[in-house]
Amino acid sequence: MVKQHRLFIATRGRGAIDITAEIAAVLPTVAVDAGIAHIFIRHTSCGLGITENADPAVLRDLETLMKRWAPDGDPAYRHDQEGDDDMAAHARALLTGTSVSVPFAQGRLLLGTWQGIYLFEHRTSAHRREIVVTFLG
Amino acid sequence: MVKQHRLFIATRGRGAIDITAEIAAVLPTVAVDAGIAHIFIRHTSCGLGITENADPAVLRDLETLMKRWAPDGDPAYRHDQEGDDDMAAHARALLTGTSVSVPFAQGRLLLGTWQGIYLFEHRTSAHRREIVVTFLG
Amino acid sequence: MVKQHRLFIATRGRGAIDITAEIAAVLPTVAVDAGIAHIFIRHTSCGLGITENADPAVLRDLETLMKRWAPDGDPAYRHDQEGDDDMAAHARALLTGTSVSVPFAQGRLLLGTWQGIYLFEHRTSAHRREIVVTFLG
Repeated sequence: MVKQHRLFIATRGRGAIDITAEIAAVLPTVAVDAGIAHIFIRHTSCGLGITENADPAVLRDLETLMKRWAPDGDPAYRHDQEGDDDMAAHARALLTGTSVSVPFAQGRLLLGTWQGIYLFEHRTSAHRREIVVTFLG
Repeated sequence: MVKQHRLFIATRGRGAIDITAEIAAVLPTVAVDAGIAHIFIRHTSCGLGITENADPAVLRDLETLMKRWAPDGDPAYRHDQEGDDDMAAHARALLTGTSVSVPFAQGRLLLGTWQGIYLFEHRTSAHRREIVVTFLG
Repeated sequence: MVKQHRLFIATRGRGAIDITAEIAAVLPTVAVDAGIAHIFIRHTSCGLGITENADPAVLRDLETLMKRWAPDGDPAYRHDQEGDDDMAAHARALLTGTSVSVPFAQGRLLLGTWQGIYLFEHRTSAHRREIVVTFLG
């Protein structure tokens, strides 16, 4: 069984958006017991990751750390045509990754209690982001 | 072919545990030639990764670097209810990731000679960690 | 449907090599509509990642940042038998990861316009690197 969906997520500039419900909404419920949900983002200046979904301070603290890992407007950057956040966004995207994958069974994602699937927008301006979700079972 | 298993690993606080043998032990050996082993951890303060399995100094040096990437008890953190290692653990988990996947064929994981699959416990105290292994072939 | 291929890539020391065409060349075109291409590298001192394929300055800037994330010859390292780049290479590999996976459909990888699949050689000397590509559909 393979099912593939396209999702479009509107971001409002830098920050993390919980997309767990959007993924769960397209999860196949018929004729398959178990498998993997593969979520892929078709961009190089935003990313996907799984992190804590209970305390919003976690997302703020991750932002604090990402700013250290890949500072905006670092004088060493040569790729800066689109602004101070341009190269930083590519570096953050490499660190957190372009895809996540989550097992499912009996119509439910097998996430842990405190796990959420997040789209990390790394650009400071709003974007429309395209995601391909592939279910293999 | 889809096979799914739950594994429980007892950690003894911060450190890396080689779980390659546990994954290999549940690898399907009948009626499938090739596929992917997907290993997913259902927590946000520990992670999975693949690294060198020969010299234990590699794991010590990775710990040294992870302490720099996400310092314990950083004064900038707002999420610190569970102690100095709380937010650091979430940040390390985002960096190293929640899942790894490894190809297999003819009943063997196709890891390189020096590759091991590791559970990285990022909390300083011992935990019981749950892993979902899904074989797709 | 499962198809598995071995690819060998010759690197010329530290740097990123675009392997998108090599992956696309072995993509199955018959009897499968959609699925996932899983790309795995069988080494612990190089890695795989997806990043911007248009401006070579992005790759140079990523190298600048990786040098900060995992400095060569750091005095804290204990694993240094093979030189100053030895431990740094393992750390970079853990950060960027050992595999990437990309959805495909109707004979084409569903990469975004600006996405390329890269092998990151983290050692300073040339190596022959082995990749296992598994298509699940």
